[in-house]
Amino acid sequence: MNILVAKNVGFCFGVKRALDLVLKLLEENKKVYLLGDLVHNNNVMNHLKQKGAETISLSDVPHDAKDSVLVVRAHGVPPEDLQFAKMHFGQVVDTTCPIVQRLFQLAKKMSEEGYKILTFGKKEHPEMIALKGYVKDAFIEQNPIELSGKVCLLSQTTMSIEEYKQFASKVMEISNVNEFRMFNTICRVSAEREAETRQIAQQSDVVIVVGGKHSSNTKKLVAIAEKYAKVIHVEGADEVDQNDLSNYKTIGVVSGTSTPYEDVKKIIEKLLSGRESHGY
Amino acid sequence: MNILVAKNVGFCFGVKRALDLVLKLLEENKKVYLLGDLVHNNNVMNHLKQKGAETISLSDVPHDAKDSVLVVRAHGVPPEDLQFAKMHFGQVVDTTCPIVQRLFQLAKKMSEEGYKILTFGKKEHPEMIALKGYVKDAFIEQNPIELSGKVCLLSQTTMSIEEYKQFASKVMEISNVNEFRMFNTICRVSAEREAETRQIAQQSDVVIVVGGKHSSNTKKLVAIAEKYAKVIHVEGADEVDQNDLSNYKTIGVVSGTSTPYEDVKKIIEKLLSGRESHGY
Repeated sequence: MNILVAKNVGFCFGVKRALDLVLKLLEENKKVYLLGDLVHNNNVMNHLKQKGAETISLSDVPHDAKDSVLVVRAHGVPPEDLQFAKMHFGQVVDTTCPIVQRLFQLAKKMSEEGYKILTFGKKEHPEMIALKGYVKDAFIEQNPIELSGKVCLLSQTTMSIEEYKQFASKVMEISNVNEFRMFNTICRVSAEREAETRQIAQQSDVVIVVGGKHSSNTKKLVAIAEKYAKVIHVEGADEVDQNDLSNYKTIGVVSGTSTPYEDVKKIIEKLLSGRESHGY
Repeated sequence: MNILVAKNVGFCFGVKRALDLVLKLLEENKKVYLLGDLVHNNNVMNHLKQKGAETISLSDVPHDAKDSVLVVRAHGVPPEDLQFAKMHFGQVVDTTCPIVQRLFQLAKKMSEEGYKILTFGKKEHPEMIALKGYVKDAFIEQNPIELSGKVCLLSQTTMSIEEYKQFASKVMEISNVNEFRMFNTICRVSAEREAETRQIAQQSDVVIVVGGKHSSNTKKLVAIAEKYAKVIHVEGADEVDQNDLSNYKTIGVVSGTSTPYEDVKKIIEKLLSGRESHGY
């Protein structure tokens, strides 16, 4: 049995930055409220909750808000929510990923310049809900739509670049625009993992994708790996059964950007111990 | 026999404007030199030459240049040529079509903003040669090419909008851009004639396309009409033989933007006289 581990595993810098900010607050013994999941990873969320952080929504402001810190998650929130939070909480810490923040600012600027904003993304994803806060009439679509006039195309940061190109190409074909702008707002770190996953899956019989079941960037890796190999999507080592994997010659291991490096490491250790017990 | 005549025939405003400027100079008894063909129509060019205008190139500055007017053609010229002309001629009159001028200024501005300029057009067309004077490293292509970085797409003003969309769509698909801009720089008047030609050709058995054999916008109309009907491309009435047309039930007539209304009129009269002689 060969194990192919991706070069880029563990947290991306945006997630690491968000977590460091929260852990620092917790170490300072601050009362920390999280505005929704900081990142899409249950292990990470459970860890933070054990340390005292609480997840809340703005419809239910806690009684000790003025003595607490509200942490805005990595996916960002609509600006109204940020304003509301600042009015009600003693302190507000914004952990919005800088790459996501750039997307919001671009959407806002282009909208102010008279462009219709069409974003390749998932309507229900927190990043897209936040974006709609910046540009109320932005179109959030996964399938191409026909537009006219001045059109600006953006993408949720965790979408597939290849699919974004197909989407943009089709919009261009079916629309009648006077002016068309397209920005590659896809996270480069996430795109690199996408390319790496493709490469690893092509050489593997089975790929273990480690990451949150609700994580958009992790689900993207699953979809890519599935084109080339059998896929097992897990959040942690306890979901991996080395007996089920004993028949595979080459096992690939990749992870989403909100997955702790420790989770990946534990899985590799399990696979290696499995190797021993089977006499490889 | 039915005759379907396009609503938009005769000169477009850009050609009319250029011709008016030259005719006014000739009426003022000025010595007029034309820097290449004012427009791509032999009848128009012969008319101007009869009135005393002479076509020259800048490699051969006439001895009486300082007492003469040099007229820059509707397709525009590279800025260096304009500068050279101003140094050597008594007066320079620039008849560059405003729609073409907008294309040049856009190319210049976008290039200054760091975009690679990719223009959908014909390398040898005077409009594209002029554009290369504004942006030395502009790509002029009829087939999609792969690019990266910041890319701006423009089109020669007389190309087909449908083909431009296909071109742009394909470039988007095969390229890896950080930022993509596309402007619809196609002449609206020319595009309208394109749509009208399609409509007329669909209802006709034969379409007479009137316009210069070297005219890009006229050749575009020929290509469109050919998809639906037999096509006869003529520059004037003398090329139309009503006997050849007696077997057709419906005859369409369309014209390029540099075609005098008189030429179209003469053809219609010939068709109508043919109708009489055949007893229709």
